[in-house]
Amino acid sequence: MKALALDLGGSHAACGVVEDHRLVDCATFDTANACSLRAVLPRIAATFARLADGARWKDAGYSGLAVGLAALVDARTGSVLGTNGKYDDASQIDLHAWSRETFGLPLALENDARMALLGESYAGAAKGFRDVVMITLGTGIGGVAMIEGKLLRGAHSQAGCLGGHFPVILNGRPCNCGALGCAEAEASGWSLPQIVREWPGIAGSTLSRHNSVGFQQLFAEATAGDHIAMAIRDRCLAIWATLAVALVHAYDPELIILGGGVMQSAAAISPFIETYVQSHSWTPWGKVRVRAAELGNNAALLGAVPVLMANSRIADHLFIQRGDSSVTQDE
Amino acid sequence: MKALALDLGGSHAACGVVEDHRLVDCATFDTANACSLRAVLPRIAATFARLADGARWKDAGYSGLAVGLAALVDARTGSVLGTNGKYDDASQIDLHAWSRETFGLPLALENDARMALLGESYAGAAKGFRDVVMITLGTGIGGVAMIEGKLLRGAHSQAGCLGGHFPVILNGRPCNCGALGCAEAEASGWSLPQIVREWPGIAGSTLSRHNSVGFQQLFAEATAGDHIAMAIRDRCLAIWATLAVALVHAYDPELIILGGGVMQSAAAISPFIETYVQSHSWTPWGKVRVRAAELGNNAALLGAVPVLMANSRIADHLFIQRGDSSVTQDE
Repeated sequence: MKALALDLGGSHAACGVVEDHRLVDCATFDTANACSLRAVLPRIAATFARLADGARWKDAGYSGLAVGLAALVDARTGSVLGTNGKYDDASQIDLHAWSRETFGLPLALENDARMALLGESYAGAAKGFRDVVMITLGTGIGGVAMIEGKLLRGAHSQAGCLGGHFPVILNGRPCNCGALGCAEAEASGWSLPQIVREWPGIAGSTLSRHNSVGFQQLFAEATAGDHIAMAIRDRCLAIWATLAVALVHAYDPELIILGGGVMQSAAAISPFIETYVQSHSWTPWGKVRVRAAELGNNAALLGAVPVLMANSRIADHLFIQRGDSSVTQDE
Repeated sequence: MKALALDLGGSHAACGVVEDHRLVDCATFDTANACSLRAVLPRIAATFARLADGARWKDAGYSGLAVGLAALVDARTGSVLGTNGKYDDASQIDLHAWSRETFGLPLALENDARMALLGESYAGAAKGFRDVVMITLGTGIGGVAMIEGKLLRGAHSQAGCLGGHFPVILNGRPCNCGALGCAEAEASGWSLPQIVREWPGIAGSTLSRHNSVGFQQLFAEATAGDHIAMAIRDRCLAIWATLAVALVHAYDPELIILGGGVMQSAAAISPFIETYVQSHSWTPWGKVRVRAAELGNNAALLGAVPVLMANSRIADHLFIQRGDSSVTQDE
């Protein structure tokens, strides 16, 4: 199967061309300051056009465009259920129409973290596993669950995809989601600068020399021996490991996959979390393994094929319902 | 359907006779100091014999004995997977043989908190709801999930039933389960006395007059105006409410049911948690309702009928596998 893939995370948009298990081509651009999805759509279209050198996707045998969005998504109806400070206009845009008009292709929508787990399951570290939790450490924290080979969705499509929003610190920092002390509010890309800024004695740390502290700077300064950087790093590791225990107790996985941009900052994250989870979770059946994602930032893009395979019937159905006969006749 | 029901919680054993949606008869005895299940079995048999005045259960049309156990249970195979400091010999006992020999009835085994949710779903506050989380506040904290009408079980039968073991306090108190800062380790019947004992300034509190502090004493002294009792009560409420948010984000319920012995101590628990959950969880579809269990301590007993209905085929299958023809021929 050939597919277009679009990963709309918190700070980047990644456009990919996927053929079965391979990412054939890919281009990424920065969206850290983008609030409106509508404003980003032309740039996405232009990026795909450049990737293909102006090819007509449908004629070239592409099955569809799979979109992973950092939002609550109902993949069954292809709609956006809720956003969280990023792309808040997404639910007002008919992305299906946009995709048909721009690429001549049907579109399938999925939560970005779920699409990354599908990618790792299809072509990466979760291949062959049926019970997997994936934690995506990036601008936000994704936490998604696959149980007995199926993504957990629940009544309103929000079961098994809000793992970053389990509170792990009682009365902790306010999160965008409304809760206090979520893992995401305490140790994610967006919350880290604030945590660093407010850390006691930060002025004496090498971290204060950086204009903006991301996990790359944090891990580098900790490795260089800065005590405050070490303390903040260790606190982040403890929060992620504690979250991993909560996810084990919630979803009963055999395997935890760690992905997201933060994983590029330190090879030690996976072993640390594996040791912690194995000694602090209750799993009489055996030991949960923890592995780094194999597909890195491309995990969600490689989820395009399983997302489209799962959604092809729904997509067809939607086109028929909308009376778009020009498309359905071609299908 | 007529059934025997046995609820083996952390501090009590409840024996019940159930006819469809009614608990016909019931007797409870204290097991707070019992560690061995084998030692308790004769007392259970005697209690049921007294309830029935020596009736032969099978001849009287009873379908089976449903047992809810405070342990990790695989209801599909009827086996105990793990215990947590209570009835640690349970996995070495053939409860199925014991039930056949003692009552002439097949036995179905379930986790006690799951059986309570099935009871509330069958005959109580969760009737008509398909997406429900039940939190049982007792000696331990149960947290179980029903999604789209089915109990969530997972690969090793431990998904959706360890809600009391989500850590909510980073590096908090060690829990029997191995984790740190679980809701159960921070605000349950077994952890409360230790929390009270270590509270700064406890000697000046009216709580120090009690030999042993349970939630009944805590809520009574807080209502009477003792400031330390109020502070501990408020901390427990915050922990339960925070756990409820985590469970909403994990399982996407429409309804949270609060049960367990602690609920008898204060009518204010449900409204407090409902207000907190509605303002601190991310549910763009609407508002999660929080209700007190209607069946009180009898919830698990009334789960006997759904447990046996779900397990009758499995039970038959097990008897055939074990070659117990005397039982299967009678079925």
